[in-house]
Amino acid sequence: MKPYPKNKTNIGILNRYQEVIELSLKKNMPNSNSEVYNLLKYTMGWIDKNGNQKDTNLGKTLRPALCLFTCESIYGSIGPSIPAAVAIELIHKFSLIHDDIQDKDRIRHNQATLWAIWGVPKALIAGNVLRIIADKCLEELVKNGSSIDRALFVIKILTQAYLEMIEGQYLDIYYEGFPGITIEEYLNMIKHKTGALIKSSLQIGAIISTDNSDIINAFAQCGSSIGYLFQIRDDILGVWGQSKYTGKAVGADIKRRKNSFPICYAISNSQNKTKDFLIKKYSKKIITNKDVLDILDVLDNLKVKKQAEEIAIHHGEKAIQALKQKNISYNTRKQIEELIYFLLTRNH
Amino acid sequence: MKPYPKNKTNIGILNRYQEVIELSLKKNMPNSNSEVYNLLKYTMGWIDKNGNQKDTNLGKTLRPALCLFTCESIYGSIGPSIPAAVAIELIHKFSLIHDDIQDKDRIRHNQATLWAIWGVPKALIAGNVLRIIADKCLEELVKNGSSIDRALFVIKILTQAYLEMIEGQYLDIYYEGFPGITIEEYLNMIKHKTGALIKSSLQIGAIISTDNSDIINAFAQCGSSIGYLFQIRDDILGVWGQSKYTGKAVGADIKRRKNSFPICYAISNSQNKTKDFLIKKYSKKIITNKDVLDILDVLDNLKVKKQAEEIAIHHGEKAIQALKQKNISYNTRKQIEELIYFLLTRNH
Repeated sequence: MKPYPKNKTNIGILNRYQEVIELSLKKNMPNSNSEVYNLLKYTMGWIDKNGNQKDTNLGKTLRPALCLFTCESIYGSIGPSIPAAVAIELIHKFSLIHDDIQDKDRIRHNQATLWAIWGVPKALIAGNVLRIIADKCLEELVKNGSSIDRALFVIKILTQAYLEMIEGQYLDIYYEGFPGITIEEYLNMIKHKTGALIKSSLQIGAIISTDNSDIINAFAQCGSSIGYLFQIRDDILGVWGQSKYTGKAVGADIKRRKNSFPICYAISNSQNKTKDFLIKKYSKKIITNKDVLDILDVLDNLKVKKQAEEIAIHHGEKAIQALKQKNISYNTRKQIEELIYFLLTRNH
Repeated sequence: MKPYPKNKTNIGILNRYQEVIELSLKKNMPNSNSEVYNLLKYTMGWIDKNGNQKDTNLGKTLRPALCLFTCESIYGSIGPSIPAAVAIELIHKFSLIHDDIQDKDRIRHNQATLWAIWGVPKALIAGNVLRIIADKCLEELVKNGSSIDRALFVIKILTQAYLEMIEGQYLDIYYEGFPGITIEEYLNMIKHKTGALIKSSLQIGAIISTDNSDIINAFAQCGSSIGYLFQIRDDILGVWGQSKYTGKAVGADIKRRKNSFPICYAISNSQNKTKDFLIKKYSKKIITNKDVLDILDVLDNLKVKKQAEEIAIHHGEKAIQALKQKNISYNTRKQIEELIYFLLTRNH
């Protein structure tokens, strides 16, 4: 992969399915007067906190787009994969609701989080409801053309991916307060936390479309690599992202003592005084703005940003490489390549 | 149903399956070193908080026992229903973990709750993991002899029951601070919160065992009635239970301003001054011990405890009545009747 253009805006895969994803999500939201569904519509970005309609802002909807794209590439149309794509997005959104409770985050996607408005008990339950709606979506797989065997297999794969995601989230919390986890530990954590659901998005799109295990494995492998690069880019933005795009201050993840790639890499690749300095700073209960600047200086000296970008690119190359086989068209690869360029250069 | 003996101890259905339930729960717990599984083993009562083995205290395991009993009654053996019974118990336990977070309860079953020991983030995730293990159990249905169609149908029914349970939990929280919900609102709330999962326990036990919809509906109806009587008895114990059995002070649910049966009934069936008095007391931010005693006096005057017991008995009779049909044996009915006697008289 050659040096890539800055701020690539051609994000075909992400744009193409936005409308069908939004419509399908709305179709699957129960039509009930119970207040809990207002919380869910709010979290999906369809209404404001007072219940008034607003312009939808669903975010990137990366996971369902990858699922639909995979199915379309192999099978020729997206139809059979829609229920799974919707379920995957709902599981993702569900996990964000619970994440915000865990991290006490009050803002996400430029709006107040559920618990910040309605309190922890209601937000916690609302998350669980969203998770069940995801399960109910999967009941549509058979109606959309999958055999019952295949539907059960999809449920199995998604359940496993979801378990891995949650295990990764647990690891993330478990590692808090342990500065100096190794790069291997970090990679294992993000493979679970972020990679499992992204991988399953492509894998399930393929399972629904074909019995050819080479093709299924190729897309699963591609998804696994996209998971790594997506999270590493996220971690880059969490440290060096511009607040006008990310909505967060520079160094936000450092201030929160997150075990993100830059810190793990810096601690793993420094020695003696520098290593001790970083661990000491990261062991403080409260990291001041001055500490953040000091740590950023060390990261600069160690050229961590460049390293992080190179590792993200490495995983991007692996993702594209995974699809290089006779049964997968040039056009499919080309589109994944474009998406990867975008993901590697996104600024929010 | 005639007046029943006090403290009935013959709880055949509950005792009979305890061992197989415990073994099956243990078999389905992933064998992993991740800390989160220690939290789960602790919550199941298998280890103490330091990880040491202890005598298991699983509690009543009412729901899985009902599922296994139904299957055994119809099909002749419990085998095919074991995965569903285990899944139902895990969903129940999962909901308790999240309940304790919502209610800030620090003690359950005489031990500290998960969040009280490990904090909200880890407890929240541990609950979600338990929920996924339940899903994974259901994958065993086919191995245990169910057809794929039937397995999918069981998943569908359990998903729906689980959604109703969560909706009921939401209603319960939503009603907090609204003293004076009607008896109809109360009954609808407990039908969801408690009834849905208990009903599904019998319904699923039947679905796994037969295609005869009369039998399935009879057990579902029986389960629905057991749900009501179980929760109403719970509410009786929450107000008048003896602390040596319940582990809670007399009037505990009043102190917490819970919209339990006694209060809903008293407010619905009192007038003028008495009604105003109750609503006023229940609207206070903090209910003092003196308030509790005053409210208990009013409940005594209104003979609420007796009314509650009679309504519980009424649902017990309906539960037994539901099984009175030619395809269901006298022996089956007799055992359900014994269980219902126990549930109506239990003191914890």
